[in-house]
Amino acid sequence: MKAVYYEGDRVLRAGQSPAQAPRYDEVQIKVSHAGICGTDLHIYHGHMDSRISFPQIMGHEMSGTVHAVGDQVTEFAAGDPVTVMPLNSCGNCPACQAGYGHICHNLKFLGIETPGAFQSYWTVPVHTVLPLPKELPLVHGALIEPLAVACHDIRRGKVGREDYAVVLGGGPIGALIALVAREAGAKVLVSEINPHRLQLLEQLGFDTINPKERDVAGYVNSQTGGAGCDVVFEVTSSQAGAELMTKLPRTRGRIVVVGIFSRPPQVDLHRFFWRELSMSGARVYEREDFIKAIELASSGRLPLDALITDVLPLEQLEQGFKQMEGGGSAMKIMLRCS
Amino acid sequence: MKAVYYEGDRVLRAGQSPAQAPRYDEVQIKVSHAGICGTDLHIYHGHMDSRISFPQIMGHEMSGTVHAVGDQVTEFAAGDPVTVMPLNSCGNCPACQAGYGHICHNLKFLGIETPGAFQSYWTVPVHTVLPLPKELPLVHGALIEPLAVACHDIRRGKVGREDYAVVLGGGPIGALIALVAREAGAKVLVSEINPHRLQLLEQLGFDTINPKERDVAGYVNSQTGGAGCDVVFEVTSSQAGAELMTKLPRTRGRIVVVGIFSRPPQVDLHRFFWRELSMSGARVYEREDFIKAIELASSGRLPLDALITDVLPLEQLEQGFKQMEGGGSAMKIMLRCS
Repeated sequence: MKAVYYEGDRVLRAGQSPAQAPRYDEVQIKVSHAGICGTDLHIYHGHMDSRISFPQIMGHEMSGTVHAVGDQVTEFAAGDPVTVMPLNSCGNCPACQAGYGHICHNLKFLGIETPGAFQSYWTVPVHTVLPLPKELPLVHGALIEPLAVACHDIRRGKVGREDYAVVLGGGPIGALIALVAREAGAKVLVSEINPHRLQLLEQLGFDTINPKERDVAGYVNSQTGGAGCDVVFEVTSSQAGAELMTKLPRTRGRIVVVGIFSRPPQVDLHRFFWRELSMSGARVYEREDFIKAIELASSGRLPLDALITDVLPLEQLEQGFKQMEGGGSAMKIMLRCS
Repeated sequence: MKAVYYEGDRVLRAGQSPAQAPRYDEVQIKVSHAGICGTDLHIYHGHMDSRISFPQIMGHEMSGTVHAVGDQVTEFAAGDPVTVMPLNSCGNCPACQAGYGHICHNLKFLGIETPGAFQSYWTVPVHTVLPLPKELPLVHGALIEPLAVACHDIRRGKVGREDYAVVLGGGPIGALIALVAREAGAKVLVSEINPHRLQLLEQLGFDTINPKERDVAGYVNSQTGGAGCDVVFEVTSSQAGAELMTKLPRTRGRIVVVGIFSRPPQVDLHRFFWRELSMSGARVYEREDFIKAIELASSGRLPLDALITDVLPLEQLEQGFKQMEGGGSAMKIMLRCS
């Protein structure tokens, strides 16, 4: 029963985790793969210490096979390939009561407020477990969670056929948004400054632009007869992105805030008035987004292998973080957990 | 043929305007009343000199009776009471082609890019003229334009029955938004710092709050079981308003940007993510908003007289501006133009 623990201040410790037999409504999963998310990097950097318990097992993007189930669990049996939608809602707050359990006021995020998937066996509530098709490689199964984020973002942005979508930020989430938008029939432009990511995105067939080298608004106008794009996804969490996002949409165009801004940026509200823009925040996903993500991943139409930069043994989590921090060619780093 | 001209740098001149006979598709209106808008005050302060021609006749909130019509005008006859929707769209730009002529890329706003209504006779394109019911007092007819702004804002905010709406800023537009929201069946709270305006809004039956004295978010939460409000209208164009607007809405709540921000304020985009908020800009109105405004004003249900602080002769436009600048009890100042 391996696990990697975050002990604070960029300190990780590989060790053993106690076996945790599933309670009546839980499933114990043998974790196959777990992806490292930017949120895990944030935890590692000590930015989320107030939300976690020490020592913390991180990780929430994963795939695995059912190892054992609790007494009252009938939906799953040992050996079933599964993934986890890592949200535990209270059911009682105004958001839950209004049907938005995914943004519950008291949401517990598995792997943040509870132990996560960076261990060889993970025990979770059955309501968080979703079956994966047997033909889906488990390494791809660990991409379902971020892919569900992208599916949710596309729904929030009401992306339709023939839409012109611009994605600001071509990291793992931005790339997945671009892929799902293309699947929805949109024409996609990705704005990114990292040359390795630009190269990868071009290999995936996307039109790309480096905002440090070219005038993105001028380019978008040239592509749309001066109208502007239909929808912008802000995935950079930067002041530069917040400035660019209002310059690109057409009259009545849409902006989706995907990036997690640690400080309030300046936003051109005059442009909202002038062009009657709309902006929506998007947070995690709902169950239908997970189902859509499983369907898309299983279709074989998405170039998921291209997004996986490396697959490391669980014990090398720290090396994974170092690759992500390097600002080089890393997209998604996966861990083999068992 | 009286007119008041803006000659730059807070200089006004009362004088004569040449008679302008209507061309084939124009209507010459004998102006009865014209309201002074915050935009006119902006022009007077020299902030919009790049958009106007000197000397400029301002004014775009008005009522009057038809004096003469062009050869091809059949919809109106002399003596008809009318108001004007002061928008002239190009018909060819991407916004017009998409059906959003009211936010045309080349929009000409009558009274800014063309001569306005602060004169005794005003000649305008027939497509901008709307009939008023004979029973509507003409002094109320001059409130149709700002009332149409409010009707548009309410539509952009998708205000429905039982919604809890918070209006930030209780000047003339904020007060009209509050009135139209109440007509739509919403419960309304108005946040305002001017004690005279607070008193008037209370007399109109609104719940009010002074954000300098009380915690608005705490109050809204106390009124909604901790959920937050359904919709916020930002009408202050201030950093304080931009900060408050994201604190108040419930999960998936809505914000409408009505205020015209001269500089980009800081906006808490994390809150958009966290609560999946939506925000829409709202600019002027569409024809259906004017029709709704005429219907509402004619119903007699709105306390329009209470919003009219003073009715001055046209020549006293400068005094009207002084009253508005005073920050005292002025809401809407009207001019008698003929």
